[in-house]
Amino acid sequence: MKIEAIDLFYVALPDITRTADGTQDSLVVRVRTDNGLEGWGECDASPLVSMTAYVMPMSHSNIINIREALIGETIDSPEDVVRLRARAGEFGLDIQQLDHAVAGADIAMWDVLGKHVGEPVWRLIGHKASYKKLPYASVLFGDNPAETRAIATSIAERKFRAAKFGWGPMGRGSLGDDIALVQAARDGLGQDAKLMVDAGIIWGDDVDAAYERAVAFADLGVVWLEEPLRTEEVGAYKALSDRVRADGVQIGIAGGEGADFYRSADDMMTNAGLDFVQIDVGRIGGITEAKRVADRAHELGIQYVNHTFKSHLSVAASIHVFAGIEEFDLIEYPAGDSPLVLGLTAPTGIFRDSEGFVQASDKPGLGVEVNLGAIHEYQRHVKIEIDGEVLFESAQP
Amino acid sequence: MKIEAIDLFYVALPDITRTADGTQDSLVVRVRTDNGLEGWGECDASPLVSMTAYVMPMSHSNIINIREALIGETIDSPEDVVRLRARAGEFGLDIQQLDHAVAGADIAMWDVLGKHVGEPVWRLIGHKASYKKLPYASVLFGDNPAETRAIATSIAERKFRAAKFGWGPMGRGSLGDDIALVQAARDGLGQDAKLMVDAGIIWGDDVDAAYERAVAFADLGVVWLEEPLRTEEVGAYKALSDRVRADGVQIGIAGGEGADFYRSADDMMTNAGLDFVQIDVGRIGGITEAKRVADRAHELGIQYVNHTFKSHLSVAASIHVFAGIEEFDLIEYPAGDSPLVLGLTAPTGIFRDSEGFVQASDKPGLGVEVNLGAIHEYQRHVKIEIDGEVLFESAQP
Repeated sequence: MKIEAIDLFYVALPDITRTADGTQDSLVVRVRTDNGLEGWGECDASPLVSMTAYVMPMSHSNIINIREALIGETIDSPEDVVRLRARAGEFGLDIQQLDHAVAGADIAMWDVLGKHVGEPVWRLIGHKASYKKLPYASVLFGDNPAETRAIATSIAERKFRAAKFGWGPMGRGSLGDDIALVQAARDGLGQDAKLMVDAGIIWGDDVDAAYERAVAFADLGVVWLEEPLRTEEVGAYKALSDRVRADGVQIGIAGGEGADFYRSADDMMTNAGLDFVQIDVGRIGGITEAKRVADRAHELGIQYVNHTFKSHLSVAASIHVFAGIEEFDLIEYPAGDSPLVLGLTAPTGIFRDSEGFVQASDKPGLGVEVNLGAIHEYQRHVKIEIDGEVLFESAQP
Repeated sequence: MKIEAIDLFYVALPDITRTADGTQDSLVVRVRTDNGLEGWGECDASPLVSMTAYVMPMSHSNIINIREALIGETIDSPEDVVRLRARAGEFGLDIQQLDHAVAGADIAMWDVLGKHVGEPVWRLIGHKASYKKLPYASVLFGDNPAETRAIATSIAERKFRAAKFGWGPMGRGSLGDDIALVQAARDGLGQDAKLMVDAGIIWGDDVDAAYERAVAFADLGVVWLEEPLRTEEVGAYKALSDRVRADGVQIGIAGGEGADFYRSADDMMTNAGLDFVQIDVGRIGGITEAKRVADRAHELGIQYVNHTFKSHLSVAASIHVFAGIEEFDLIEYPAGDSPLVLGLTAPTGIFRDSEGFVQASDKPGLGVEVNLGAIHEYQRHVKIEIDGEVLFESAQP
């Protein structure tokens, strides 16, 4: 079959708040083929910036938009998807936003290919099985310990067996303030739940500040300390990891969501001493590139975890990436209350079974369907004109 | 003084050709302050994609546009520029295009600060002197050896003492074809001129193919082989560099233009075995970040060279970055015939002296002025609407 059209839908809540909550808007990408099939994908990125990477005018042979690279091309096999993903990368070699933007098309190509050949994406990308994963509720810290405890309690009531708290006041006060936040999360969750902490790069390149927290949080049974430092501070990460290991501190160091392309993740895995590498399939350029990272992590003995703070379309795309690697047993699972998280794919989704686990399905493609009503309700209408001619205009789904 | 406005000008030739010629369009950025001063910068990036990074709606606390980060902020010292560059990075933490886009504003902030305090940029960023550099004419290979020789002859007639040929047919035919191209360039330039070859990442991750060319080109007195491999193939670069050194092949390995942010350049310098690191000030996020790379290269004994394939606004920004490091004695110098190269800053520019050298000037700021007439002539009028409201519209300069 041939790719006939690539449609772009910018959806957003009416009011966007200045918190680290990525579920307030989205860029949803649809690939349509000449035999009437549709595949869907989602980018974790600025919707407007990424849209322009699909439609902007050519600057030269290395700045050509994604639509130009993909429309009209043949897609009948996994090799075709890999080839087309690479083609988009060549056409957009000098577009920095390329990886964030093309992620949606890459995911949509895998979805539509799965529907075409009647296979789930995990099998198309080479996995032999789809193992169950334990979802951890991914939420932001409350503004203080009391609020954080209330959030944790509600997560426990929703029967999550694992949770990650991040951003908010973490690292903005004293060491004692940070411990009180994590203690409150632990108290609300209970002693048996897995608890992870996402520091949101708050200590920059300050290894001592991060180390102090690692020691204190280990005492509260925290599985990993995530993004204590800025992504680019690879040397500082290594110093932190080495010190944590040398001193026998029982906590993992996690990072990698800031990796926008394969080599950046590989750099983190090779040079930063990570225990967990967290990859966003909607940032790193899609399933094709995320799978490369998962395979490399497996070789290196680093646990691959998804980074996902979007809808269940992204949760689905994420779980296929590492479905077949049994040791990679945790999955980030957005648990806030944005109507986009569950609504974008309602009534389908990646739902927990009776024991609280989730699994990539055997259905063709990603195994979830996009809810056109949600796109209709939340879509922002974008119109871009250059010299009076319409370059792009949003259409109804 | 305070930043009062940031203006964006997308300029382009009427017809854009599908060659690797980056001088066909540009995004020019103007920063205006409340005391009536103006600073100018230029991005080497897709103009439309980068424009949206300045104006797009907030997605959450880590996707906030560059205008929001900078307008209204105080800028009176070099520390202010560094602080504001970092602020734009924090606001746009999850905008992949951030570095490409903010480069223009960063350059413009250094320019306006220089005008404000009456100092050239090279002094503001910590250099003690401005040394002369030898410009190498940077051109594309012709479609065959005869055309390449003609281009080289015309460069020699224009009294360039160094030249770099790149892209075009290089690597698309046999080893013999590649040698014939380089031989033609050498014949046209003469034996005394420095000659560099830019392979345009043509051999991907094929170390053997790159090594064969390195050996052959060394015999033709080529100073460096640039981007023989894809930027992300850091391990393959290291294998190539190690082999070239072990066998005593007299040619340098160059790369780095694909580094979109500091750590990517640091990764190349630390792990790829480069002899020359080539940084585009208009891609890596401006003078602030490029200077960090130059300092790190100096520490590591790697020669920093600019990558510049835009106008003399970018040539000026580039030369300030490494003006004070005498060993960094070569500067890439666009030498094609696009009217934007010289026209955008006419009648000012970075011009060769009687011995063929160029130098960052002592004038305040960058030392070149933007030609408003050229912007008027080549500007593309962009209008972006969301839900019927105008988010951005191009204005006359």
